[in-house]
Amino acid sequence: MSPAPLPTDLNGIRRLDRDDRLAGFRAEFELPADVIYLDGNSLGALPKAAKAIARRTVEQEWSQGLVRSWNDAGWYDMPRRLGAKVAALVGAGPDEVVMTDATGIDLFKVVAAALALRPDRDVVVMEGSNFPTNNYSVQGLIRLLGDRHQVRFVEAARLIDAITDDVAVVCLTHVHYKFGHIHDMAAITERAHTVGALTAWDVCHSAGALPVDLNGCGADFAVGCTYKYLNGGPGAPAFLFAASRHHGQAWQPLTGWWSHAEPFAFERDYRPAPGIAQMLSGTQPVLSMAVAEAGLDIAARAPIEQVRQKSMRLGDLFLALVADSCEEHGFRVACPQDAQQRGSQVSLSHPHAYSIMRALIDCGVIGDFRAPDVMRFGLTPLYLRYEDIYDAVQVLQEVMDTETWRRPEYAQRLAVT
Amino acid sequence: MSPAPLPTDLNGIRRLDRDDRLAGFRAEFELPADVIYLDGNSLGALPKAAKAIARRTVEQEWSQGLVRSWNDAGWYDMPRRLGAKVAALVGAGPDEVVMTDATGIDLFKVVAAALALRPDRDVVVMEGSNFPTNNYSVQGLIRLLGDRHQVRFVEAARLIDAITDDVAVVCLTHVHYKFGHIHDMAAITERAHTVGALTAWDVCHSAGALPVDLNGCGADFAVGCTYKYLNGGPGAPAFLFAASRHHGQAWQPLTGWWSHAEPFAFERDYRPAPGIAQMLSGTQPVLSMAVAEAGLDIAARAPIEQVRQKSMRLGDLFLALVADSCEEHGFRVACPQDAQQRGSQVSLSHPHAYSIMRALIDCGVIGDFRAPDVMRFGLTPLYLRYEDIYDAVQVLQEVMDTETWRRPEYAQRLAVT
Repeated sequence: MSPAPLPTDLNGIRRLDRDDRLAGFRAEFELPADVIYLDGNSLGALPKAAKAIARRTVEQEWSQGLVRSWNDAGWYDMPRRLGAKVAALVGAGPDEVVMTDATGIDLFKVVAAALALRPDRDVVVMEGSNFPTNNYSVQGLIRLLGDRHQVRFVEAARLIDAITDDVAVVCLTHVHYKFGHIHDMAAITERAHTVGALTAWDVCHSAGALPVDLNGCGADFAVGCTYKYLNGGPGAPAFLFAASRHHGQAWQPLTGWWSHAEPFAFERDYRPAPGIAQMLSGTQPVLSMAVAEAGLDIAARAPIEQVRQKSMRLGDLFLALVADSCEEHGFRVACPQDAQQRGSQVSLSHPHAYSIMRALIDCGVIGDFRAPDVMRFGLTPLYLRYEDIYDAVQVLQEVMDTETWRRPEYAQRLAVT
Repeated sequence: MSPAPLPTDLNGIRRLDRDDRLAGFRAEFELPADVIYLDGNSLGALPKAAKAIARRTVEQEWSQGLVRSWNDAGWYDMPRRLGAKVAALVGAGPDEVVMTDATGIDLFKVVAAALALRPDRDVVVMEGSNFPTNNYSVQGLIRLLGDRHQVRFVEAARLIDAITDDVAVVCLTHVHYKFGHIHDMAAITERAHTVGALTAWDVCHSAGALPVDLNGCGADFAVGCTYKYLNGGPGAPAFLFAASRHHGQAWQPLTGWWSHAEPFAFERDYRPAPGIAQMLSGTQPVLSMAVAEAGLDIAARAPIEQVRQKSMRLGDLFLALVADSCEEHGFRVACPQDAQQRGSQVSLSHPHAYSIMRALIDCGVIGDFRAPDVMRFGLTPLYLRYEDIYDAVQVLQEVMDTETWRRPEYAQRLAVT
């Protein structure tokens, strides 16, 4: 059954909110009163439950439990226990994911592990326009390995053809950070395997936003962050997936005591832990990790197909309203028009994107700017209403009609968001 | 002026507390009422000011500021700003230290950078009995580099002779995690430089506990953690020092957007940031990092020479009291008797160390066990009183006299502390 056509009038939009089966989730988040927050693809909102976790972790577990809390409060188990919660959201087994370190560090680990499994190949396929920290992570690894490998940068349309039998690893971000297009994880992974390559997926912009089925697609490795659609908090630790068939075969090189077979034997020489634990390194930032559980628990209760349906409709509504009301202002749609091809964001390009975004933020509509000319609007179905989209586009229209964005204080300088 | 001989009677000990110029710092920490905490060398106590930081970071900056807090609340600057605060504590310049990632990850970075500066040498000197995660970190790097390097494991007494002209890097922990001996950073660094080697110091067990003078000693690189004597909280991010003369010369390989020359230009290819920023990788765990500032600010106000003097006296008192009261119970002193040679801990070995430590913890005296037979007692002058040492040894004597430690619940199993 295909959904009814989207209304674009306010009454119709309010009806969408009344009928929204996810509407109740909004009450689980704390949001500033004067803001329409369309940047949850950068930093997700605060789950109310996270406040109590932060207080408990600091004011009880650290304060009163002290070092005993590594056992008594379960700090030591968190990378595995929370990893299993993430696993359930991305189509992985509970023993295939750990929560640990940061996305770029984890990407270094899994690409190094994958390259070691394909010692006779020297190409890593990546999308050149991808979020560049992934490039930098792989470039740093390749330099460290003595420049014996190379990155083959290709764009989406030419990806499949670029995956040839000299490729060791295909390293892609499932949903593009800027343009929002979705890669066909199943088809690309199948192509990679056909030519004998492995895959390392970055699901930063898809985990919690749309169905991700790592094992269903046969993915080999994956990394992702928990502070976007999973609402884990600023800089919350990342997660790392390694398919169980690679456990014991592929070593990540950032070995530390948490990845040792017997961490508390304090042996002089490294011996790899069995299973997913080998993907750990050292001690984790407990407070940042503990707090992230609140967002994971919300995601576990939110049916991902409903999240996806609402996300697509929020995006369709946004684009329809922009087309209606801002037609003369020179925006170009920089994301797929087809919701099926689009992640949980919309992107508009404009020569004055930076200044327009500054003006929007000042008016309480928070999206973000990505160089050189893209405005991103993240769509987070758990705490956004359809009416928020209506209001946001009204503000955009106002900013354009009144040329507010031309004010000197919005002139472009180096952006730090 | 050498200090007066230590009293070991309760009245004399109370006099030490009355005369203690650091006594006022205790009120800045929150400690459980029923505990004598001698494990601050593993996890430091909670600074009261950290509670407000945690609340502000979660309930204001995340909740209300959302993504704007990267600029408005200074999240983006924290690795540099807090790094400069650490720098002042370890004899480094403000632009030579960043707070980032975890100790083992940071060690991987600096040893990789150092090896790249000495491409014609293949030996890393390490202390075999050191906290083994450092070994694992270097072993992982060496394996990744194709086993062209080797670790030369030596113990303290033979270190200087082992630093020969085939050595690329001397990688040592300033104060030994288990036995507490202090390496002569100046002499070892000088020896390393004489033969053309570089140094990478781990100051986890010395930063905040005793004077550390990285630049005074000519150290090349260093790493350290903030959750021991700096009281930064469980798993708080580590710090990394690179001497300014190596900036622009030595690259660390875990390159990410925070280490790029223009992070927000989103360039496809990596270009190193100038200065210490190249030592960063990606996004940091904001909450864990923010909270750590409370401990750094306390350390900044505590004169390190006074901290050191009190630390030595606490240790001398502990050993004197154990010698007096537990003589017949078979303890061996496993740390230097000479306080000048000893870090801010005392260590005792005993065949039943595990069970004795379990019993002690149950009686409210928290130290820790390190395999196979060592009991560690951390001495943290900012929140310990001399009388706490007296009380702790009284409890130890009681546990031994009554053989409480023989209870079945204290039988040895795998320790996780």
